[in-house]
Amino acid sequence: MAFANPSFLEIPESYLFATIAKKIAEERARVPDRAIIRMGIGDVTIPLPKACLDAMHAAVDEMGRAETFQGYPPYEGYAFLREAIAANDYRARGCDIAADEIYVSDGAKSDTANFTDLYGPENVIAISDPVYPVYLDSVRLAGFKASQIRFLPCTEAGGFLPEIPKETVDIVYLCSPNNPTGTAMNRAQLAAWVEYARNHGTLILFDAAYEAYVSTPDVPRSIYEIPGAREVAVEFRSFSKNAGFTGTRCSYTVVPKGLTARMKGGGTVDLGKLWLRRQATKFNGAPYIIQRGAAAVYTPEGQREVKERVAVYMGNAGRIRALFQSLGQKAFGGVDAPYVWVRVPDGFDSWGYFDHMLRTHGVAGTPGSGFGPCGEGWIRFTGFGNPADVDRLEGLIGR
Amino acid sequence: MAFANPSFLEIPESYLFATIAKKIAEERARVPDRAIIRMGIGDVTIPLPKACLDAMHAAVDEMGRAETFQGYPPYEGYAFLREAIAANDYRARGCDIAADEIYVSDGAKSDTANFTDLYGPENVIAISDPVYPVYLDSVRLAGFKASQIRFLPCTEAGGFLPEIPKETVDIVYLCSPNNPTGTAMNRAQLAAWVEYARNHGTLILFDAAYEAYVSTPDVPRSIYEIPGAREVAVEFRSFSKNAGFTGTRCSYTVVPKGLTARMKGGGTVDLGKLWLRRQATKFNGAPYIIQRGAAAVYTPEGQREVKERVAVYMGNAGRIRALFQSLGQKAFGGVDAPYVWVRVPDGFDSWGYFDHMLRTHGVAGTPGSGFGPCGEGWIRFTGFGNPADVDRLEGLIGR
Repeated sequence: MAFANPSFLEIPESYLFATIAKKIAEERARVPDRAIIRMGIGDVTIPLPKACLDAMHAAVDEMGRAETFQGYPPYEGYAFLREAIAANDYRARGCDIAADEIYVSDGAKSDTANFTDLYGPENVIAISDPVYPVYLDSVRLAGFKASQIRFLPCTEAGGFLPEIPKETVDIVYLCSPNNPTGTAMNRAQLAAWVEYARNHGTLILFDAAYEAYVSTPDVPRSIYEIPGAREVAVEFRSFSKNAGFTGTRCSYTVVPKGLTARMKGGGTVDLGKLWLRRQATKFNGAPYIIQRGAAAVYTPEGQREVKERVAVYMGNAGRIRALFQSLGQKAFGGVDAPYVWVRVPDGFDSWGYFDHMLRTHGVAGTPGSGFGPCGEGWIRFTGFGNPADVDRLEGLIGR
Repeated sequence: MAFANPSFLEIPESYLFATIAKKIAEERARVPDRAIIRMGIGDVTIPLPKACLDAMHAAVDEMGRAETFQGYPPYEGYAFLREAIAANDYRARGCDIAADEIYVSDGAKSDTANFTDLYGPENVIAISDPVYPVYLDSVRLAGFKASQIRFLPCTEAGGFLPEIPKETVDIVYLCSPNNPTGTAMNRAQLAAWVEYARNHGTLILFDAAYEAYVSTPDVPRSIYEIPGAREVAVEFRSFSKNAGFTGTRCSYTVVPKGLTARMKGGGTVDLGKLWLRRQATKFNGAPYIIQRGAAAVYTPEGQREVKERVAVYMGNAGRIRALFQSLGQKAFGGVDAPYVWVRVPDGFDSWGYFDHMLRTHGVAGTPGSGFGPCGEGWIRFTGFGNPADVDRLEGLIGR
């Protein structure tokens, strides 16, 4: 009988959000007539922008006519989408990123997890604590031993920012605006990481899935706003949280030309080529219809609709933050990110407070400890729900 | 600087179909006013079935209303699609496969390649020669050493079927109806593999992406038509070749309950659980809109439209086969598969004949040697083009 990959046996049996979903299902069975206020998983609730719907209807029609029918998509995405991304998300913001440095895919989760495939497990890789669980789980699936992983504590005392290591690490995952803590790095803080990476030959895997939520002028939306970042950073972006594509599935990854990795025998290899090789072998491109929908995000109507959605979610996040602060609980985030990071009251740990909120009020957050040991004592609430849910929450626990 | 995964440096720089696309582009530049007859890559040309278009239009509308909006999809696919698959593709054919054994994904290529992640590279894995290149490339990316790979020659003398090994292999990839040779295993031939697998504890990874093209009554469409196959086989299926979803991206994999892999420390682990863990960590489900389109394949109108497409493509394949046979070249396939496997004339090797056909007639096939050493001396043509292209081919080279 075939042997299982031992790395698969080392990650936790149950993915965090699967555990939460199970607990919510149990609570619904226990109290069937109470609607759960879901502020746990970071899933959006506002329907897709009309610009995207119109574009997808048109694309469906194109798939029904021989002259416009689309077969296999390019592995790296259609030029119409890559060019719209380069023009709007980068050149319009003064970032030197070209269309052929953009690789379209089916989700930032897939990309952040699959990018790990490109690296041998002899690298030293740094990961924040608390952290989006997929980075760590995928690093473990890739066979990285615990001794190759450095955790960077993100504590209240440090403003929830990872401290730059004294030693050299080969790869570091950074996420700003941050999931789960809701904090964001300002220009100087991000520039310090770029400088570290340039001095130590470190590759930064920069997750900017929440860039649409940045409101503070001094907070970069892309790592490429920092001079020199092209030479050290890969950036992950998504249409999930700006345009509500969580169920529509489209994202992209930027791998600047000139970024390389070392070969064991000596010499270097182009990282963009390695990524394309991975995608060409183990993926076959995102659906035409979906890529047409994503491109519509960059139309004037699409941009206006994205802004409306961001405003609603940030309105929710600001109110959640204010609500917990009014109860005397510390609460962070909710300014440049749709996440609010709330201190649990004395006498609770993260899961204890999660269970308490779920069973007492029918409110589901995400226990901070699910994101790593430094998340213990905290709980994450998301602004992605309906404003009416925030009304209900205020009615249930507000003073 | 981070080290690259050395496995990535061992697979060929250029994926077969990328090389062909490059040669076609060069030929178009050389002779701009001649349309290339594309019989190389297995991409379909007939627009999507109307049943699928209607279902996707309806799903796009659902994504625009708060009451019906869909966020993150289930990792394993929506119940409506998994149940339609189980009922129509399995139970209706007497196969004992349940909806919760079906895992929906974005392509059979992704699944056949990613499934390799579940296995440690200490396994011995058998692969046909010639073979769909993705199996071999993904096995190499997963770190399997050459000494762990057994090639099973598929020659004209053996009817292009892989010979059952005398030794024990842990895993074997089988593809029937076969890409690239166009041959298909009958019931007795497939039953012999199932018996071997049961006797040797071998896992069969069965690629049935071309099952819709089976016309011979004695050729199974699913490996689960063979008694006992549930205990030894995973099956990969796709909507690409029956309903034309190459650019729409939907497929599924069947992992029967009770299938297990060995753990090094002893004991076994459930394979379906491992696959779900992989998909939950490194993938996030296929788009709602696309899964609704795929489910419409199982409506009466969808089934009728699939049959129309299969009839057109098989008409092409039969004519291509007859055309080369009329020229005195051996030609196989084209009966239970849309591929025709043609012997190149004396004096040519596979790439030489490919170049000759491209430059002389503007016809692109796929060189047999691109699928493995045993493919040398053969060329693959596909029936997925327009019947008018077959007319042109007959006019160009027919007698």
